[in-house]
Amino acid sequence: MRTIEWNDSDSSVKMIDQTLLPGELKIIKCKNVAEICEAIQNLRIRGAPALGVCGAFGVAMAARLSSANTVGGMLKDIKAAGEAIKKTRPTAINLSWGVDRLIQIVEEEGMDPHLIRNIALEEAQRMADEDAAINKKIGKNGAKLLKDGDVILTHCNAGRLACVDWGTALGVIRSAALEGTKISVVACETRPLNQGSRLTAWELQQDKIPVHVITDSAAGFLMSEGVISKVIVGADRITQEFVYNKIGTYSLSVLAKEHNIPFYVAAPVSTLDPDNWEENIKIEERSPDEIRYLGKAKELNVAEGIPILNLAFDKTPMENISAIITENGTFYPPILIDEIILG
Amino acid sequence: MRTIEWNDSDSSVKMIDQTLLPGELKIIKCKNVAEICEAIQNLRIRGAPALGVCGAFGVAMAARLSSANTVGGMLKDIKAAGEAIKKTRPTAINLSWGVDRLIQIVEEEGMDPHLIRNIALEEAQRMADEDAAINKKIGKNGAKLLKDGDVILTHCNAGRLACVDWGTALGVIRSAALEGTKISVVACETRPLNQGSRLTAWELQQDKIPVHVITDSAAGFLMSEGVISKVIVGADRITQEFVYNKIGTYSLSVLAKEHNIPFYVAAPVSTLDPDNWEENIKIEERSPDEIRYLGKAKELNVAEGIPILNLAFDKTPMENISAIITENGTFYPPILIDEIILG
Repeated sequence: MRTIEWNDSDSSVKMIDQTLLPGELKIIKCKNVAEICEAIQNLRIRGAPALGVCGAFGVAMAARLSSANTVGGMLKDIKAAGEAIKKTRPTAINLSWGVDRLIQIVEEEGMDPHLIRNIALEEAQRMADEDAAINKKIGKNGAKLLKDGDVILTHCNAGRLACVDWGTALGVIRSAALEGTKISVVACETRPLNQGSRLTAWELQQDKIPVHVITDSAAGFLMSEGVISKVIVGADRITQEFVYNKIGTYSLSVLAKEHNIPFYVAAPVSTLDPDNWEENIKIEERSPDEIRYLGKAKELNVAEGIPILNLAFDKTPMENISAIITENGTFYPPILIDEIILG
Repeated sequence: MRTIEWNDSDSSVKMIDQTLLPGELKIIKCKNVAEICEAIQNLRIRGAPALGVCGAFGVAMAARLSSANTVGGMLKDIKAAGEAIKKTRPTAINLSWGVDRLIQIVEEEGMDPHLIRNIALEEAQRMADEDAAINKKIGKNGAKLLKDGDVILTHCNAGRLACVDWGTALGVIRSAALEGTKISVVACETRPLNQGSRLTAWELQQDKIPVHVITDSAAGFLMSEGVISKVIVGADRITQEFVYNKIGTYSLSVLAKEHNIPFYVAAPVSTLDPDNWEENIKIEERSPDEIRYLGKAKELNVAEGIPILNLAFDKTPMENISAIITENGTFYPPILIDEIILG
């Protein structure tokens, strides 16, 4: 199955619970907006493109469950649900983008409550299909940058599990591998929630693409030893100045620059945010408990009472980026995001 | 108590089991060389200076337990024990240094087996006292580099627990705090064994020195945000070309350079290795299981079958280092380790 799907038989949103991987592949069903918010908040589903589609399915769910019998009443319910969903992860733009796109369509075309329910679900489904198709295009565009023998370092999970299907950074790797390019991957563990070791490595193992896992802090040394040929990461938001992505991305960009290693960002155009500036963008600080305790057994990693700073994202300046790979093509410095949008 | 001590009442080597911190403060007793080797191998005791003294106590233990009744027989037993101990951690020079220093003294002064037993233990005790005194000197020298308001980033644990007492990098921080300098610390978690979050943060909390814990990959972003004023780390071996230290040190040195942040190494002269070159120095690769499973509950972090590269150390070129702080003084570029040895 895809990472996230609408399940017609019981009107639920089905998704892979990513907190249980790689130990267990479990499909969960969210039957209301609160369950969708819980799943996003607790990272059962994560990854910028997947969140966009999840936000859209959340709005579709709100429309379906609304008991309003006027357009105004239903819009009120839908917008309240949209706000609740958007608040769960403030840094990823795709979540807002997915919610807002769906609300806009409903506002434009929803003539009566029944129609709104249908439009909302159809549009969310279309966005899911679109996401899969866009990722294939990103993959095809990015695959041209890779060649036999490349060892590609990636951070966090910008794979199938971060999207509806295929992946952005891992989509590029997958497309190259599918075309027969002989590559291998180094996956950074990605503390504190280990999306690299748990998810990226697992995905690549499933696809039989060679992968090694390292700790985040081993990346620089491997670069200095000449082991890494390229870095490819995803993005949660791209403004005119910065790429916002998983904490650690910025460090990798500086290390790549120091070692003259190309640093690529693979992301759909929906990740672009041309009208926002850094002072308006909140870097999500997550619970210190994600670092204080290790794993589900909650083993003590930081003594009680010691403060912990758990920033989920960082920002990488455009000048550290060798190219941005999108469905509209690959864009090299000087990277102007308005040009990417125009395609 | 000190991190490691000889226990007269039952002729054991007492040490804090560092694998159990911060959850539990437990003292273990090693009653033979095999138990000492096990403790070193499994990082119940770790840290370059502590390993030096542990190696010396290990040789003293071998002398005590040897049933040889000739000097030659006893030397044979001692040397076999020394080799076994040295093999447990190949990168840290202090372990070899401690073992070799003790064997040399015994060879020079041991006229009969009984005398050898006494000389060995006295010398090991002297090395422990010396280590504590040296660290106080390192602390005093390094404290001059710190000023009110400094936020000091450190990696791994170069504290009291890495030494007999006081610490090297944390010794500098401790000495500055004791002199009344208002500083605070940012401790990197230090995957995969989390010596920063488990040990460094705990030590500083005990001493009421303000500390925040971050993931390793957050260091670069905090530097870019202007939060970090200085970096201080310890060392496991210092050659004419490189500082060998916990994996991640090299990345931090590149990031510090990028942000014009001073990068200091604090270490005793016993860490210097002027006659060795990189081709002779083995970077310890530890078991993949340290990364594959999380914590004592052994939660799956990397799916079975996926290869993991678990390098314990990296090497930082001298040009990335702003100063080396030793008991012989503080040395600035161009850093020549022969000059440090001469003092």
